[in-house]
Amino acid sequence: MNSRALPHVVIIGCGFGGLQAAKVFAGKPVQVTLIDRCNHHLFQPLLYQVATAGLSAPSIAAPVRHIFCRQKNVTVLMGEVVAIDSERRHVEIEGAGDIGYDHLIVATGATHSYFGNDAWAVHAPGLKTLEDAFDIRRRVLLAFEHAERTADEDQRRAWLTFAVIGAGATGVELAGTLAEIARHTLAGEFRRFDTRAARVLLLEGGARVLPAFPAALSEKARLQLNALGVEVHTNTRVTAVDSAGVTVVHAGETACFAANTLMWAAGVAASPLGRALEAPLDRAGRVQVNADLSLPDHPEISVIGDLASITCEGKPVPGVSPAAKQMGRCAARNVLARIAGRSPQVFRYIDYGSLATIGRKSAVAVLGNVRLWGIPAWLVWLFAHLYFLIGFRNRIIVMIDWAWAYFSFQRYARIVIGAWKSERRL
Amino acid sequence: MNSRALPHVVIIGCGFGGLQAAKVFAGKPVQVTLIDRCNHHLFQPLLYQVATAGLSAPSIAAPVRHIFCRQKNVTVLMGEVVAIDSERRHVEIEGAGDIGYDHLIVATGATHSYFGNDAWAVHAPGLKTLEDAFDIRRRVLLAFEHAERTADEDQRRAWLTFAVIGAGATGVELAGTLAEIARHTLAGEFRRFDTRAARVLLLEGGARVLPAFPAALSEKARLQLNALGVEVHTNTRVTAVDSAGVTVVHAGETACFAANTLMWAAGVAASPLGRALEAPLDRAGRVQVNADLSLPDHPEISVIGDLASITCEGKPVPGVSPAAKQMGRCAARNVLARIAGRSPQVFRYIDYGSLATIGRKSAVAVLGNVRLWGIPAWLVWLFAHLYFLIGFRNRIIVMIDWAWAYFSFQRYARIVIGAWKSERRL
Repeated sequence: MNSRALPHVVIIGCGFGGLQAAKVFAGKPVQVTLIDRCNHHLFQPLLYQVATAGLSAPSIAAPVRHIFCRQKNVTVLMGEVVAIDSERRHVEIEGAGDIGYDHLIVATGATHSYFGNDAWAVHAPGLKTLEDAFDIRRRVLLAFEHAERTADEDQRRAWLTFAVIGAGATGVELAGTLAEIARHTLAGEFRRFDTRAARVLLLEGGARVLPAFPAALSEKARLQLNALGVEVHTNTRVTAVDSAGVTVVHAGETACFAANTLMWAAGVAASPLGRALEAPLDRAGRVQVNADLSLPDHPEISVIGDLASITCEGKPVPGVSPAAKQMGRCAARNVLARIAGRSPQVFRYIDYGSLATIGRKSAVAVLGNVRLWGIPAWLVWLFAHLYFLIGFRNRIIVMIDWAWAYFSFQRYARIVIGAWKSERRL
Repeated sequence: MNSRALPHVVIIGCGFGGLQAAKVFAGKPVQVTLIDRCNHHLFQPLLYQVATAGLSAPSIAAPVRHIFCRQKNVTVLMGEVVAIDSERRHVEIEGAGDIGYDHLIVATGATHSYFGNDAWAVHAPGLKTLEDAFDIRRRVLLAFEHAERTADEDQRRAWLTFAVIGAGATGVELAGTLAEIARHTLAGEFRRFDTRAARVLLLEGGARVLPAFPAALSEKARLQLNALGVEVHTNTRVTAVDSAGVTVVHAGETACFAANTLMWAAGVAASPLGRALEAPLDRAGRVQVNADLSLPDHPEISVIGDLASITCEGKPVPGVSPAAKQMGRCAARNVLARIAGRSPQVFRYIDYGSLATIGRKSAVAVLGNVRLWGIPAWLVWLFAHLYFLIGFRNRIIVMIDWAWAYFSFQRYARIVIGAWKSERRL
């Protein structure tokens, strides 16, 4: 392609950061190659709703190719980048050889971390991908099916006990929704037990839920969780996770919860690709970047999103989607500036506020100096997420799903893929 | 439960037959246990649309429990029946012990058959379950991704060649939709090839497509398939299937098609549970039942749907959903008749006609003496399927999906679950 004569920009990862970066290059004199392991851009803020059977996967995932079908200078490749050679300036795609670049934007984000206890992963899956969401959905729905099948009361109690580890936004969303499912969605559908007897535990090592929020809103969140029937345990550190349940330490006391269904929402770690850059990393494995998001010795390489470690006006930039989008736009504009011989701009993070939902009509929100909770916060959350959801069509479908779920207390996607045999717990 | 004092009816399988049977018992003095391997009733006539990314799984699957949440004399159990003891009158559920019955209705349907070549299954998956549909969706979407990744022209051609084996309703639907995806849905989204170069082969051993339809409509269907770009090969017998493609014999000549994506729509075999009944089976493994759908030596056992072999007015009853529904109602009413000391009724199949869709605005239909094709047949198909689709909500969502797909030529569910690595061909 003669377009190869143009500067070649390679973007790794099509999350919020990579997507925004690629869009900046629309109509610009560059050739862009966008590489992602998945064929879709995932709207992660709503992933917990797929995990809890509220939405179907395609409602929150848009095919990357379709997003860029009209942006002809973008080539989308599905594959995994396994190596980056910053000297010879090419990346290696597993099974598809090397691709050279003039400018590289790395946006591979973060994954969940078990703080060295990777053996816990099989018992307490995290929630980062659609696969994770389907796994959690399957475990939750099958737990109730097991409870209906068994004649053993202890086993039934274990199947009806759900423990969410970590009370950040995802943990709070999962716990609140699980309580709703037990109290409302499934009520009256089982003959051998009352689904409202199900216990939902939210285990947090820190002093309060939603630690990123002001203490007053954390307290509001805790009250709303209690109202939904969630047992919130703060200052409770998880010391062991196995097929029988979870062991915790609280105020020096050790306790065990017999729970057959566990979810991990406690820790995130940067994508391993950060190490391939031979750049300084912070404790979480994130790449420490210059003020303009480039690497110290490699102005042609930028790192953005959850993989980047950067402070702005003395405060570390949080690993949230608005920050990733802003970094994506900044990094792409800096690439264009360098090509045009202009000097790059430093990254400035604009904090529009933060939102966390807990359940129907309950959420918390910080918007500048305004603090909201309950219905007002929930409405802000609702419309913010509909507004940012990719694809006009998805917005309509999600709106219908939510309206229907709200009035019927039902959940649309209560489907376990596959037969019982293939779903048995190993 | 004191309700156990009531006659206990066990229904195995919640397809069209089992679902209808269970509904007949609403408010009747019986205790019903409905056992299925899946947690959902699947609307199989639209399964090919999940496989071709047109619909999301939850749109065509309804949770069995929810269907019966208000019918309190129905207990739903998720599990697999592995044995039937017709002497001691109980069934064994894998991992959940025995369940006794007074009356048993077996409705476990059919699965696909490779006519003794089970090794073909890994290369040419069939389409019976949601898992199958996801597998086919993944293979089709990844084939185009492989074609974009590879630099080898022969490999690209093999990735862009799709072969559907068997030209019954499912095969015709799959082939027609695949051609549309290549011609319209994905057009312009790849940079290294033109998706319209993709070949879709429909291979049929018999003399014509849709053999269950009148010859004139088979010809109409073939013309419509050609118009969509499908290469129809009739009188073409498949002799080998492997990772390189498919080998066929046509008019004594052997030919090989290099195709990396194959689909099996050729043969069905009755569910293996039929053998557990120790009743006479026909060649397809279906249970030969009395005129009232009961077993020769066991009036308390009925077999219905695709698992039952029965003739009505001299003609064999076809394995279609209307027949299964009618059998379900008949078998359930006969159970109630026996309980009431009345004599059971013989089964009469009412043929309302048959429909097969080929693509947008193309289908064929037989309604009594009326034969339709093209747009009229397609409209009949459209509304018939919307009408029979379970759940008011699903109908609305599916209608929106279809309207959107029709006008945008897009397909909603183009999502490959999981990352590239986990999707690699072994």
